[in-house]
Amino acid sequence: MTPLVLDTTAIKRATTPERVLTTVRDALIAHAHGRTTVPPPLHLQFPDADGDCHVKVGWVTDTPDFTVKIATGFYRNPAAGLPTNHGLVCVVSARTGQIRAILDDQGLLTAWRTAAAGALATHAMARPDAATLAVFGTGEQARLQVEWLAKLRPIDTVLVHGRSQDKTGSLCEAFNALGLDARPAMADEAAAADMVITTTPATGPVLQAGDVRAGAHVTGIGTDMPHKNELPPALFARAALIATDDHQQCLDHGDFGHAVRAGATTDTSDTPVGLLLERPVERPDDAITVADLTGVGALDAALASAVLAELAP
Amino acid sequence: MTPLVLDTTAIKRATTPERVLTTVRDALIAHAHGRTTVPPPLHLQFPDADGDCHVKVGWVTDTPDFTVKIATGFYRNPAAGLPTNHGLVCVVSARTGQIRAILDDQGLLTAWRTAAAGALATHAMARPDAATLAVFGTGEQARLQVEWLAKLRPIDTVLVHGRSQDKTGSLCEAFNALGLDARPAMADEAAAADMVITTTPATGPVLQAGDVRAGAHVTGIGTDMPHKNELPPALFARAALIATDDHQQCLDHGDFGHAVRAGATTDTSDTPVGLLLERPVERPDDAITVADLTGVGALDAALASAVLAELAP
Repeated sequence: MTPLVLDTTAIKRATTPERVLTTVRDALIAHAHGRTTVPPPLHLQFPDADGDCHVKVGWVTDTPDFTVKIATGFYRNPAAGLPTNHGLVCVVSARTGQIRAILDDQGLLTAWRTAAAGALATHAMARPDAATLAVFGTGEQARLQVEWLAKLRPIDTVLVHGRSQDKTGSLCEAFNALGLDARPAMADEAAAADMVITTTPATGPVLQAGDVRAGAHVTGIGTDMPHKNELPPALFARAALIATDDHQQCLDHGDFGHAVRAGATTDTSDTPVGLLLERPVERPDDAITVADLTGVGALDAALASAVLAELAP
Repeated sequence: MTPLVLDTTAIKRATTPERVLTTVRDALIAHAHGRTTVPPPLHLQFPDADGDCHVKVGWVTDTPDFTVKIATGFYRNPAAGLPTNHGLVCVVSARTGQIRAILDDQGLLTAWRTAAAGALATHAMARPDAATLAVFGTGEQARLQVEWLAKLRPIDTVLVHGRSQDKTGSLCEAFNALGLDARPAMADEAAAADMVITTTPATGPVLQAGDVRAGAHVTGIGTDMPHKNELPPALFARAALIATDDHQQCLDHGDFGHAVRAGATTDTSDTPVGLLLERPVERPDDAITVADLTGVGALDAALASAVLAELAP
């Protein structure tokens, strides 16, 4: 039997942001309780072509499917008219080992689970009355994080901070088209919003800890390698509550790890974000809260499984 | 662009045993010279379903493609009418990272490269005048190893040693149908052939070292996990030449490792089999030679690439 191959059109038809949010929430909770299997990824480098390949396996224990995700990045591709990133997600039955489907998703599931995790963490940890949202960065994640958080709570104002005036302007227009009141902002003004989400590939802090106001919440989703860094250690020192999506991963290559190594917090100061999604978070009104999200592989499996349940039940 | 999916019919049409033998020979030589990249495999277990999954990546350096191979084994499947093993091979460009094709090969490429490596090693290491061939085991590899060695040199007699009389008989008939003179044999008679190939999942020696004759060659291809063992350590003690397809792998989980740990030989006594394929092997007429093959992941890449070169040049 030839494996089922599903493209982005089929995948988009099979799910909704609401379904993605529910699936990712459940998977983050499962991960917080140790009910996931995520072996360290395989990594292959192609120095002559300036390329690399990661192979990641993930499983939410006792669910029907696991996934093998192949993701490549070849950084000279644009010069040849090819996309930098390529890959696919292979969905395998955890009950029979049969390959159920190949999702030719162009990175869509990874983008969705990253956006859903950020929106869920921000919504759970921010004050119920928080109404201004700032986003650092102007890429796909900046757009998705804001859009999906807006599905979880009302947002009065969106402040967009980017390095490119054009891209910042375009993103604000896109938000306006969705009925959100969005405008460009300087870093200090953005950092002073009720809710802040950073979505950049920065290798040094994108905001100053002193600009973040008492009572605010900050979520960082861009730091996924040891040399990257978005949130300053001093912000973690000020935080009353720190959440991580995966303790060891955030320690190894998240902003949390930078803060621990800088002595701004201890390596036991974090709470699994999944635990904060189970029930309303108790937080003092004037506390600062921070979420450091580095990406959990088991979410790929949960999301791919949810897509397949819809398409090939 | 939806990835190209090729099934076994297309794969079989795209190649010949001769082409597989040439490709595997070149890849074994490349591996012997360190021109391959084979990171340790990913491994996932599903104890409740008695299943496991291996993900293997391989690349022959400077060739156009690398492969990601997913292989599952779920040992309760036959009771549900499903095959135990499933998987696929994903072929990725090592120059652009684009997924070139998915080979839905039902394990065919792995079977072919295993058979080709065994036949090549046996032919290269056996005496030029060796004419009787014994095979231990009656499965797919027993059949392929003999068939392919017969393409490399004339074989007078094939002796088949198996545990099941029915399967042994059927395999002899299959060989007869190919024009080979084949008959069942007891273990001691089989072990005394000019060339011996063991292809079993045995967890203890399938032959006695004392039954192997001076001047004979023995190839073991069944031992691929630490608890498996086909060739007795005493055979390695008698061998004038020991070849391994991957030194570290054979030491970790091959018959060579059992022999080293038993003190029958030293961990530096082996020669990379690829080096023996480059030019005629010099061996005394009365020497015993042994090849321990555990399977090299880079061969998957070489073979998949060769198939694709034919189908999608």
